[in-house]
Amino acid sequence: MSANSFFPSFSNKVDLMKLLKEHPGFYYSSHEQRIKKGEVFTHKNISDYLFRIESGVVEFGYLKDREFIFQFFLRAGDILALPEYAEDLPAEGCYVAVNEVTGWVIDMAFVQEVLLDKDPKNQIMMTHFLQTRRKFFRASIRANLEPKQRVYFCLMTLIEMGFRNSKNSVELPDFVTHDVLATMANVSKSLVLSVVRFLRDSEILASNKKPWVILDLNKFMYIMVEERIPTNSAI
Amino acid sequence: MSANSFFPSFSNKVDLMKLLKEHPGFYYSSHEQRIKKGEVFTHKNISDYLFRIESGVVEFGYLKDREFIFQFFLRAGDILALPEYAEDLPAEGCYVAVNEVTGWVIDMAFVQEVLLDKDPKNQIMMTHFLQTRRKFFRASIRANLEPKQRVYFCLMTLIEMGFRNSKNSVELPDFVTHDVLATMANVSKSLVLSVVRFLRDSEILASNKKPWVILDLNKFMYIMVEERIPTNSAI
Repeated sequence: MSANSFFPSFSNKVDLMKLLKEHPGFYYSSHEQRIKKGEVFTHKNISDYLFRIESGVVEFGYLKDREFIFQFFLRAGDILALPEYAEDLPAEGCYVAVNEVTGWVIDMAFVQEVLLDKDPKNQIMMTHFLQTRRKFFRASIRANLEPKQRVYFCLMTLIEMGFRNSKNSVELPDFVTHDVLATMANVSKSLVLSVVRFLRDSEILASNKKPWVILDLNKFMYIMVEERIPTNSAI
Repeated sequence: MSANSFFPSFSNKVDLMKLLKEHPGFYYSSHEQRIKKGEVFTHKNISDYLFRIESGVVEFGYLKDREFIFQFFLRAGDILALPEYAEDLPAEGCYVAVNEVTGWVIDMAFVQEVLLDKDPKNQIMMTHFLQTRRKFFRASIRANLEPKQRVYFCLMTLIEMGFRNSKNSVELPDFVTHDVLATMANVSKSLVLSVVRFLRDSEILASNKKPWVILDLNKFMYIMVEERIPTNSAI
């Protein structure tokens, strides 16, 4: 027996929405919702529903002394933590819309009914847990870096999320600002400004208008090596 | 349908070893192994086998500039990362025996065969992923604390692993030393020494012989509040 036939594989992902939409009860149990930029996902607006992101970006973090500690982003196709497991996490999580987010709000009992029938091996749940586990590990690796390294590490993450407009150039996501980067890296805005200034002066980054653009990816990657950034871990 | 009936619950854990031992082929596919204190688990000594800890403690971390960055402990009943998922993690993990460890080394194909048959819903794998996900989140929360806070946070973790010899007193695990605590908290040994000295002077901790003992848990917990340690996250 091949090991790969048994464990869920990311390349062979079962599509949750495909399964749900095939069920005749889908539109009775689901509706779409817009969440405005900056809005927090609470029990009030998603309660015991599954929220599946269709567009936009959601940041997940937790509160430490009332300060939001960024952990990771969730994007189209990702699902927000299931209520059953919220209590299992060691800190109260907090989801915030980074830009306008749209998604399906789906009755949890309906999701469970469909999955029980159509995904008896729980491949979808396992994939979800594995992906979020990887994200937490990455958050831990980032937190163990020096402040300046964290800024570079976060830029790597944003490059991965960006739009590769040529072989050596990447548009970063629209929502990127000095403040966003400071929150992601858990550093002061002045440190972000100093890193950005260095990258601009080196003609590696254009940040005068949206979207920010990495103009020379090769040069950027060279700096990552110099700064000892664990690049594989950022993605 | 109750939500709890669908998702795997930690309180209703399926026992992997029970399932495996019930199979007539168990002793043909498995043997026990001793791993000495300080020994690293590598492909050479566990290769494509599942290692299930029977006794002792294993620490999991990753290498950053050749330095071991502690993430979490694994104990009796826990299983070491499955080879299939090692490549999925954002950094190369490293398992080290904290004291003498014994465990079952079980052929992976055999494990898969039994689980496919006896755990078709993959409850065991899901539980494993959820538990390690929680451990990574905790590692991230710890890394986001100040150095001194991290020492206290780690003491909380050790208290949880310890032996509650009376209502207000806990023996910490035998392996606890200043060096172990410094590695766990990713701080200098001198900082550990200063925290330990303070706790000794306050008659909260006895560390003159093994095992270290928290003499006054109430007083210790009071300090945790003062130092703003997220105590729920430590456990």
